[in-house]
Amino acid sequence: MIERLTSLICGTEPMNAVWSPDATLQRMLDVEAALARACAAHGVIAQSAVAAIVEACAADQLDAPALARDAALGGNLAIPLVKQLTARVKAADPEAAKYVHWGATSQDIIDTATVLQLRDALALIERGIDALCATLADLARTHRATPAIGRTWLQQALPITLGLKFAQWLDAMLRHRERLGVLRERSLVLQFGGAAGTLASLRDAAPAVSAALAQELGLALPALPWHTQRDRIAEAAAFFGMLIGTLGKIARDISLQMQTEIGELGEPAAAGKGGSSTMPHKRNPVGCAAVLTAATRAPGLVATVFAGMVQEHERALGGWQAEWDALPDLARLAGGALAQTQQITAGLEVRPERLAANLDITHGLILGEAVMLALGDQTGRLDAHHLVEHASKTAVQSGRTLYEVLAADPAVTRHLDEARLEALLDPANYAGQAHAFVDAVLAAYEANARQRTSH
Amino acid sequence: MIERLTSLICGTEPMNAVWSPDATLQRMLDVEAALARACAAHGVIAQSAVAAIVEACAADQLDAPALARDAALGGNLAIPLVKQLTARVKAADPEAAKYVHWGATSQDIIDTATVLQLRDALALIERGIDALCATLADLARTHRATPAIGRTWLQQALPITLGLKFAQWLDAMLRHRERLGVLRERSLVLQFGGAAGTLASLRDAAPAVSAALAQELGLALPALPWHTQRDRIAEAAAFFGMLIGTLGKIARDISLQMQTEIGELGEPAAAGKGGSSTMPHKRNPVGCAAVLTAATRAPGLVATVFAGMVQEHERALGGWQAEWDALPDLARLAGGALAQTQQITAGLEVRPERLAANLDITHGLILGEAVMLALGDQTGRLDAHHLVEHASKTAVQSGRTLYEVLAADPAVTRHLDEARLEALLDPANYAGQAHAFVDAVLAAYEANARQRTSH
Amino acid sequence: MIERLTSLICGTEPMNAVWSPDATLQRMLDVEAALARACAAHGVIAQSAVAAIVEACAADQLDAPALARDAALGGNLAIPLVKQLTARVKAADPEAAKYVHWGATSQDIIDTATVLQLRDALALIERGIDALCATLADLARTHRATPAIGRTWLQQALPITLGLKFAQWLDAMLRHRERLGVLRERSLVLQFGGAAGTLASLRDAAPAVSAALAQELGLALPALPWHTQRDRIAEAAAFFGMLIGTLGKIARDISLQMQTEIGELGEPAAAGKGGSSTMPHKRNPVGCAAVLTAATRAPGLVATVFAGMVQEHERALGGWQAEWDALPDLARLAGGALAQTQQITAGLEVRPERLAANLDITHGLILGEAVMLALGDQTGRLDAHHLVEHASKTAVQSGRTLYEVLAADPAVTRHLDEARLEALLDPANYAGQAHAFVDAVLAAYEANARQRTSH
Amino acid sequence: MIERLTSLICGTEPMNAVWSPDATLQRMLDVEAALARACAAHGVIAQSAVAAIVEACAADQLDAPALARDAALGGNLAIPLVKQLTARVKAADPEAAKYVHWGATSQDIIDTATVLQLRDALALIERGIDALCATLADLARTHRATPAIGRTWLQQALPITLGLKFAQWLDAMLRHRERLGVLRERSLVLQFGGAAGTLASLRDAAPAVSAALAQELGLALPALPWHTQRDRIAEAAAFFGMLIGTLGKIARDISLQMQTEIGELGEPAAAGKGGSSTMPHKRNPVGCAAVLTAATRAPGLVATVFAGMVQEHERALGGWQAEWDALPDLARLAGGALAQTQQITAGLEVRPERLAANLDITHGLILGEAVMLALGDQTGRLDAHHLVEHASKTAVQSGRTLYEVLAADPAVTRHLDEARLEALLDPANYAGQAHAFVDAVLAAYEANARQRTSH
Repeated sequence: MIERLTSLICGTEPMNAVWSPDATLQRMLDVEAALARACAAHGVIAQSAVAAIVEACAADQLDAPALARDAALGGNLAIPLVKQLTARVKAADPEAAKYVHWGATSQDIIDTATVLQLRDALALIERGIDALCATLADLARTHRATPAIGRTWLQQALPITLGLKFAQWLDAMLRHRERLGVLRERSLVLQFGGAAGTLASLRDAAPAVSAALAQELGLALPALPWHTQRDRIAEAAAFFGMLIGTLGKIARDISLQMQTEIGELGEPAAAGKGGSSTMPHKRNPVGCAAVLTAATRAPGLVATVFAGMVQEHERALGGWQAEWDALPDLARLAGGALAQTQQITAGLEVRPERLAANLDITHGLILGEAVMLALGDQTGRLDAHHLVEHASKTAVQSGRTLYEVLAADPAVTRHLDEARLEALLDPANYAGQAHAFVDAVLAAYEANARQRTSH
Repeated sequence: MIERLTSLICGTEPMNAVWSPDATLQRMLDVEAALARACAAHGVIAQSAVAAIVEACAADQLDAPALARDAALGGNLAIPLVKQLTARVKAADPEAAKYVHWGATSQDIIDTATVLQLRDALALIERGIDALCATLADLARTHRATPAIGRTWLQQALPITLGLKFAQWLDAMLRHRERLGVLRERSLVLQFGGAAGTLASLRDAAPAVSAALAQELGLALPALPWHTQRDRIAEAAAFFGMLIGTLGKIARDISLQMQTEIGELGEPAAAGKGGSSTMPHKRNPVGCAAVLTAATRAPGLVATVFAGMVQEHERALGGWQAEWDALPDLARLAGGALAQTQQITAGLEVRPERLAANLDITHGLILGEAVMLALGDQTGRLDAHHLVEHASKTAVQSGRTLYEVLAADPAVTRHLDEARLEALLDPANYAGQAHAFVDAVLAAYEANARQRTSH
Repeated sequence: MIERLTSLICGTEPMNAVWSPDATLQRMLDVEAALARACAAHGVIAQSAVAAIVEACAADQLDAPALARDAALGGNLAIPLVKQLTARVKAADPEAAKYVHWGATSQDIIDTATVLQLRDALALIERGIDALCATLADLARTHRATPAIGRTWLQQALPITLGLKFAQWLDAMLRHRERLGVLRERSLVLQFGGAAGTLASLRDAAPAVSAALAQELGLALPALPWHTQRDRIAEAAAFFGMLIGTLGKIARDISLQMQTEIGELGEPAAAGKGGSSTMPHKRNPVGCAAVLTAATRAPGLVATVFAGMVQEHERALGGWQAEWDALPDLARLAGGALAQTQQITAGLEVRPERLAANLDITHGLILGEAVMLALGDQTGRLDAHHLVEHASKTAVQSGRTLYEVLAADPAVTRHLDEARLEALLDPANYAGQAHAFVDAVLAAYEANARQRTSH
Repeated sequence: MIERLTSLICGTEPMNAVWSPDATLQRMLDVEAALARACAAHGVIAQSAVAAIVEACAADQLDAPALARDAALGGNLAIPLVKQLTARVKAADPEAAKYVHWGATSQDIIDTATVLQLRDALALIERGIDALCATLADLARTHRATPAIGRTWLQQALPITLGLKFAQWLDAMLRHRERLGVLRERSLVLQFGGAAGTLASLRDAAPAVSAALAQELGLALPALPWHTQRDRIAEAAAFFGMLIGTLGKIARDISLQMQTEIGELGEPAAAGKGGSSTMPHKRNPVGCAAVLTAATRAPGLVATVFAGMVQEHERALGGWQAEWDALPDLARLAGGALAQTQQITAGLEVRPERLAANLDITHGLILGEAVMLALGDQTGRLDAHHLVEHASKTAVQSGRTLYEVLAADPAVTRHLDEARLEALLDPANYAGQAHAFVDAVLAAYEANARQRTSH
């Protein structure tokens, strides 16, 4: 399928399958089948009608082009679907045909089908988050103490460790994991209200049928239908958007660290991926680009779903329909971005020599603060500040390293000998709480993983 | 095709065809074919290679699933397309295969193909705007003097004419017509720059090949390539967004006037469209809902394209790719919304009895100002104001019409006799410049139409 | 303050105060003061320095114009603020001046101040949600059984009760209440990382100082700093956006029901509010307009915060700064929309005679389904369908009521006598589960309220 | 003013002044004054009333806090403003007070005031664009032939010239210059329609008064009022958004080229700007960050204005009011981003030694294509490709330069001697059409500048 060009570079087969036309139709038919069962179980329709209806609820039996053509007339896909379904049931069992779609309105079918698809999508996302968390935890553990330069404003600032970067990403992913759990509980609920949300046509059987329908589909039963209360859908959209935002941040970092001039990280090599036969130095961050594409698209899609929340009365025009593609697009992009990030990080090339070389680019200036603090213990902070500031300027102007300048200054060497100076100018010694932060996140990750396993 | 649910209710076959996978691939191949011709014409590639390349440039010969699979590796569709194309050419003429895609970069092919599709899309939009303008002009002419209530804050305010409403819509559409012309001139340009935008691999032949390529494709030749300067695309996106915004306003108005309680307008009846067998009073504004769906989606899509403008260096990651679906989606929604609005307005049911009844709902209060002005000519404005304000309150409290109250007040009848009062309380007599405004817009429309015909 | 025109119509004084320039500066100074205390408590700075620093941390002592002027130089407000603060401390105690802002980076101060403001904002929002829930619960209880017409596609569909509408709104607000609790726990955390997020300059004291600082400010201590992990902020933005979306839906409904031609509801009258002296029939939905303004603005603001998540390395450029106004704007709009909705609903005018009149507009057609179901019990569904469909069409064409037509048809009266027919055509008897749904939401509301009280 | 934090870093005093509360009020009063004059000129109000009204139209005489307080009641700022204005006129000339605001509705005043502010804003933007174009033209001219590396996917690709980059930016700015002209013509029009857009209360004098009012204010007179046709405003918003997008692209490039590891460009140094006393190597791209902030904010603001286009009937609720802050915010950000970009580029530090060093980082690999083309002239393209591909891989693996490897290969040196090889591996010789493209843009710039001067 090359219908959606973005999905080509940022999509996964399983997630695309969840939202494929076939799956969409089948999920709608699943709801119709479950409805027939639920109605029959509570005497609303004849038990004898169930078999014919359930049997006809197979997407591959539908005339898709006719559905597409007729959807515009009624304004949604459920109307022609019910028409075709009824015709098929009728052919098999004319009596049963009278009981198709009993008590439901189009939006009941479409919304509940969407919730079923959302459930599938969230299961994929959960697996993806778990896998990515494991990968990031490995990376954080491995590079817990690997010195790297910290950059602010795209400028070299102070040393960090590479593990700290990975732990930061992991920390955000753990929060997304939490959000997923809450979202699932709040959003995976049945939609069933009939024409005006009162289930009037089901008369006294309404509560029993609703409960049975929810159970048939494995969904929670909400206090009441929510045809024009779209906060659950908006929350799902926001979840996808936030997840993509974090993945976009990861991709931004990796692609920046992959720059030819920086070269600290590399996307894993794959035959034909991101390379160029005539430019062997070039390794395009193809995966990062896909994730960044998702991150560029997501905010507008989230805004669309939010804008659609302002819906009229009992069933609305425009706001609801605007969700139809926006939510699946978000899920697809989230799934794709997650898979790409997983692939990138699982095979991430880390180039210690480039990390080290970049730490050395300023010839020690990034460690002026470390020297200043040590010196300040002896001289007082103010004098230390002046000494180091002066030395840094001298180093820049003279092209010498900060070590050379400091080691030549008796006002410094009086307090710090060469070995001490060398140690102070070693980035590995000025990573602050980086190790502890990594450990804290890893501990949280492990606690979280244990908790999930124990369930 | 039921891939995009929104397109089902707000899309047209011709516009969908412009952006279909097949058309996208064919447009890319059209660029490759034209490139071969242009290169051969200027001695860059062998003339003998052209036939084999051109012949292979047929989308139906491509292995689309393989394209979809391979697109992710290189990060776009052009890379596997060129690979397949080369393989096909090689099978026919191994020598010619060396000349495929000469001097071009993937983005040259994709961008230029997009521009070609945009050209087709704008041609459809132009036709749609022209048709809608004609319909709205007819409606404005016909209802130039049909009294209607003007509503502000969703409250009845003062009389207008129905024609004024239509003229307002037409006036906005005429501006979109203008924008379309400018957009076309500014945006329908070749993209051709090679790997870094310098056309270096074409050496001295670059200018001639560029010019020939632009001519082959019927596109203007820009001063230089624009790989990461996306304002032309953003302008197209904004155009679609603004057009959809205006159409959304029209749909909002019509759907509000179609409310059961208002009933002034109706979407044209069509078999199976928007009706309900058991609720014969119900005529769902199915077309308006489709347009409002487009209007809910467009702002987020425009924002996406705008956000994508911040692109890195000579060719970017993320910002460019985010356009791939967003621009076609906007074009499709614009085309669908235009077609729906055309269908709605061309067969628009106007119910004069409901227009009249609604003008009468306040029992004359909406014409207090008219009486006040006439009375003020005699009594001075202040006294008139007091008299009418008092009468209006009396009317509301007593349940009488404003006419009854005023006609019973000697302070009023001293200046305005019954006939005068009746005339003043006729909405048709208090439409202000409505007729003149309609005429002004119709004159602009006709001048505009004449000008286009004369070209 | 008329700086923000939107806040004039959709803002509250307390919420505006939370985000006022003064409050922003004071919150930043609060963080500086707490930092001095925390550092001194753990021996990082001299205890003697604390008093001078804390004393100088008063926003009214700052030179605000100078701050505004200098902010551009360093790129944020914290840099000149620290400069002014240091100068003021120096004047009082030169030694203490050396300890100002110890170990922190600008973003630590700005982010933590924002979190403190967010805490205040969420407290206001919580109070607002609770008040609105109580109001909506009252309305739902009062109008639990008040018949009203349900509208779909802006068309009359089937009867509901007015209480069902209110219960729907309440149900959504209860979910927002839940979200608020989770958001608070996840987002109200300290930001403290120093220049590159490692707290290196605090050396071994870093963990103790961090913990003390968090405690001083009453914030939770996160596992690690989150300078470029903005999902917590994005979640807050999304929360405001979702809340506003629900309020927008309420405002849309009320404004539609306030239309002159419908008149079922009215915003509470207030001197000078939404009225017109010469148009006494006009009651502008001024409060609804304010809420709808917020709902039009929110999606774009949410999208901005989400777009800003893609941040570079350890501290970023652009993405972070884009939050500065977007988050406060969202909070202000949420607060304003909540207050307006509260005011509208607390004094909501409900006009039973208009509700009844509108239920009667279709002369019974909205109850065809009720008759059909009852008739179907006797005749079978198919026959019943034909009888009622025919009767409905006859009613429309002949201008008679559905009752008149049905009562004149022996095929109907054979099964349903006049009394039964009358009962079936009473909207109060065809509200389905409306009462039960209202009760379910009220029960959830009360359980929720009890739970909160018991804490 | 530190009300808007974003404006602190991305705003200019003149643009802030255009949209300040004072200016907003004064512009509204300017419209009221002009209206009095226009009405008097055509006998609608007494000539004697004009002086008192005009005199009272001074913003500094208003009670701003009262305005702020009362705005919420009527839903906009014009209602209390007219009230205060009337009271002030009354104090001076009770008779004149009756003629204040004659024939106008609140939206007439607010929209026309906005258009006047937009005119001022566009004048500032025009000046800013012209200045930036001049700066970019200078840069393009100066660096027309300065070799630089072209980067795609954030990877080094092929050589370009620095001038080409500048010419690209200039080319986009020239298009914005064009758009500005068209926007001005289409959008700077009077809004004047009275309560329902018919000017009914002005009776026969309406056309003359409208024309006079437009002339008084120096605005064009549209065919009819446009209260709920917001495409002109949307076009202005889109213009600002597109302009900001281009500036964001420039800021992205500069900030990337300012990275410590790349160091090709630098924002101009200024006392206290972007520097750090203890990290003398650090030069934060403070100006770029401000522009990128604007670029992150703009898409959401544009989306808001576009979303607001769907307005109800003759005057709307929500959509219109959502423009009030969004349009000024866009103008402010555009003005700020333009000023920042001007400042950055006017004093741009270009570091030729870093440009050269970065061109050398791949040891010649970026020029493999150049060698391949030259070799291909002798050996045929295929052989050349194989030779260079092999040499490139050898160079990478052995750590030698491409020159060393090629010069040692007789299969190469047979065709290309050392001098030729050296020349081929000089980036300055493989800039393709860079010079010609620069010249083309400069020619367009100069033609454009001449044309404007001649007017």
